[in-house]
Amino acid sequence: MANVATDAAGITEEETEHMMERNCVIEADNVASSIDPKEMRAVMLAGFGGLNKLRVTKKTMPEPQHGEVKIRVKACGLNFVDLMVRQGNIDNPPKPPLIPGFECSGIVESIGENTHGFEIGDRVMAFVYYNAWAEVVCTPVDYVYKMPDKMTFQEAAAFSLNYVAAYMMLFEVANLREGMSVLVHSAGGSVGQAVAQLCSSVPNVTVFGIASCSKHVAIRDSVTHIFDRNADYVQEVKKISPEGVDIVLDCLSGEHTGKGLILLKPLGAYILYGASNMVTGETKSFFSIAKSWWQVEKVNPIKLYEENKVIAGFSLLNLLFKQGGCVRVKTVMDKLLSLYNQGRIKPVVDSLWALEEVKEAMQRIHDRGNVGKLILDIEKSPTPLMASDSTETSEAGEEEEDPEGDNDNKERMPFIQ
Amino acid sequence: MANVATDAAGITEEETEHMMERNCVIEADNVASSIDPKEMRAVMLAGFGGLNKLRVTKKTMPEPQHGEVKIRVKACGLNFVDLMVRQGNIDNPPKPPLIPGFECSGIVESIGENTHGFEIGDRVMAFVYYNAWAEVVCTPVDYVYKMPDKMTFQEAAAFSLNYVAAYMMLFEVANLREGMSVLVHSAGGSVGQAVAQLCSSVPNVTVFGIASCSKHVAIRDSVTHIFDRNADYVQEVKKISPEGVDIVLDCLSGEHTGKGLILLKPLGAYILYGASNMVTGETKSFFSIAKSWWQVEKVNPIKLYEENKVIAGFSLLNLLFKQGGCVRVKTVMDKLLSLYNQGRIKPVVDSLWALEEVKEAMQRIHDRGNVGKLILDIEKSPTPLMASDSTETSEAGEEEEDPEGDNDNKERMPFIQ
Repeated sequence: MANVATDAAGITEEETEHMMERNCVIEADNVASSIDPKEMRAVMLAGFGGLNKLRVTKKTMPEPQHGEVKIRVKACGLNFVDLMVRQGNIDNPPKPPLIPGFECSGIVESIGENTHGFEIGDRVMAFVYYNAWAEVVCTPVDYVYKMPDKMTFQEAAAFSLNYVAAYMMLFEVANLREGMSVLVHSAGGSVGQAVAQLCSSVPNVTVFGIASCSKHVAIRDSVTHIFDRNADYVQEVKKISPEGVDIVLDCLSGEHTGKGLILLKPLGAYILYGASNMVTGETKSFFSIAKSWWQVEKVNPIKLYEENKVIAGFSLLNLLFKQGGCVRVKTVMDKLLSLYNQGRIKPVVDSLWALEEVKEAMQRIHDRGNVGKLILDIEKSPTPLMASDSTETSEAGEEEEDPEGDNDNKERMPFIQ
Repeated sequence: MANVATDAAGITEEETEHMMERNCVIEADNVASSIDPKEMRAVMLAGFGGLNKLRVTKKTMPEPQHGEVKIRVKACGLNFVDLMVRQGNIDNPPKPPLIPGFECSGIVESIGENTHGFEIGDRVMAFVYYNAWAEVVCTPVDYVYKMPDKMTFQEAAAFSLNYVAAYMMLFEVANLREGMSVLVHSAGGSVGQAVAQLCSSVPNVTVFGIASCSKHVAIRDSVTHIFDRNADYVQEVKKISPEGVDIVLDCLSGEHTGKGLILLKPLGAYILYGASNMVTGETKSFFSIAKSWWQVEKVNPIKLYEENKVIAGFSLLNLLFKQGGCVRVKTVMDKLLSLYNQGRIKPVVDSLWALEEVKEAMQRIHDRGNVGKLILDIEKSPTPLMASDSTETSEAGEEEEDPEGDNDNKERMPFIQ
């Protein structure tokens, strides 16, 4: 996973921190882009913690190593896991400072030695082991895929992680077939929407979606039945399907694991693909982590035997970056691009954000305000704050952290799409 | 599950117990068959416990209820689960006395009201909720399948449970595809042999089989690699396939669950389909059950998430008789019969036994002496004991039970095939 930008030594001593105050950043940005071709803008996480740990900085431009391509980034995907990274709430995180982000799209700018399959100018989407939220990214060729001609860069940045995860869970971990039923939490999120679309590619699949009431109108057409996330969904689902469902996709964990298991039909599969219940505030909460961990029902396989049930966990990032899953993911990506080209799946983009707006974007994911994917659009300028807005983010990252998050920020966020 | 024979009230007061001493039984048998057409011979489990709880008795002939067919039985399958039933070592067992056995083949003799799809004279195989080990069986039509013309009754009795279980585990719980690898315990057993054959129906599947050394020659051609059941198979498998295997099929439980999980590749599935380690002697051992139960690693789904692993349990009997799985099993049976007709699968029959030889047959399964399936052949007469044999089973079931089993009995068992 050689990448100059990951290397702490690669950070220039004199790097200029582009503060999150927007007017500042816009000026600095213009300067940065024009002055030094060996530098690039990137989002930097200075240390694990709250939103104040994030800033836009200048970094030394990475160059592709053997087997890598260098990509001039156009758009980056923002995922819930990026919040967990920010809090240091993941398994063996790298030591900050680091550039977050695991996926991007852009144009191949140069190619390392012994690197085959791509040419300068190719439009690509890519997985990156951190470092995606930058103007330039280098990543091994195994993580890079050519984009279909009609796919936009924003769509591409919304495609890789979420559709591959949704596909592998539905068709490789579980075995989705005609006539089955799927329950998906966070149905309005980017994975949820990918799941709903992929389910509609199989005849007669019933999708039970769980989402905040505020999203019900927006996602009504993508699922068969929709429930409020605060409702007693076990009872609601059983009213419609007394025997339960075939597949439960859970990104929450905690108490929802037990509920998911209860809802499974015989031979049904519960798949845990995230633990967003661990993130209850802006900063890491050991209490909430411990609570989620212990609330998860630990399962005796003999009970699974008696009940004919399947429990699985799925982490695409671990599969890609720790478990050598590239070849398998490439096969899945080929199938997904075929479905995209047939018009059967199409990423739902919630909103586009400038790099300098990463805090607001993260807060929106945290508050579960999005329907579909949040994209960092490298070429986007930050939306000027409105005159009435008085809650600007401070410069120095010294503001007090509110573990409950400042939900009232939502109203003033700049949504483009 | 209406079946006259299950009903304790259906046992004739004057029923004659055919003792297991063979000369006795043969005489009584001839009499029983000729005297009363409303009676039939059956294996009876008088109470949970050791082999001495089994005897052949006369029972009132069952008649088919609504939706049932009456089958003149030709052959019955004997499975490890029958040993667990004998010991009462299953979830919510019915109250003895009972007739054991879950599968048989034979000829349709009559048909209940509102029963469609079968005619008198049809050659069939069937699942039965207990009561299979008898001359006549009644079972709901949903559990009955027509036999291919070229299939023998012995093959049919070896087919239903084991091939359906193997198929559903490989293709419905897991998702076996080209190029994958499967580790199967008890590879010489009837499920193990079905698994090996079904794996060979998919291109380029590697089968790691674990079996007693004594079976290695017999099953060498059915698996890719074979290991002794007492070997450190985790290390042995890793020598050949350092990254592990895609599917582990475990009928043992206990310490093997943890080993199976260790051996899984990312996205691999561990499937527990039995707990034969719970049966360590002839009679139920609470110590061994408790040991097996607690030795099973209870799994936190968050760990599965980090490791990209799947844990499943599979019980075909529960699926069929407690969880309404008939329609699903019917679909699987159709696929299996197609594979049989193409010559791609063929049951391996270890040995044929008279009803009166059920103790010896059970002992052989307990001792894991079989390669393939043990069949109770209704029309078979007990093999006369050899002159040198002095360890006949006692009449009254009063013999002392040896919890370790009397393994030295093996040498004198009558194997036909």
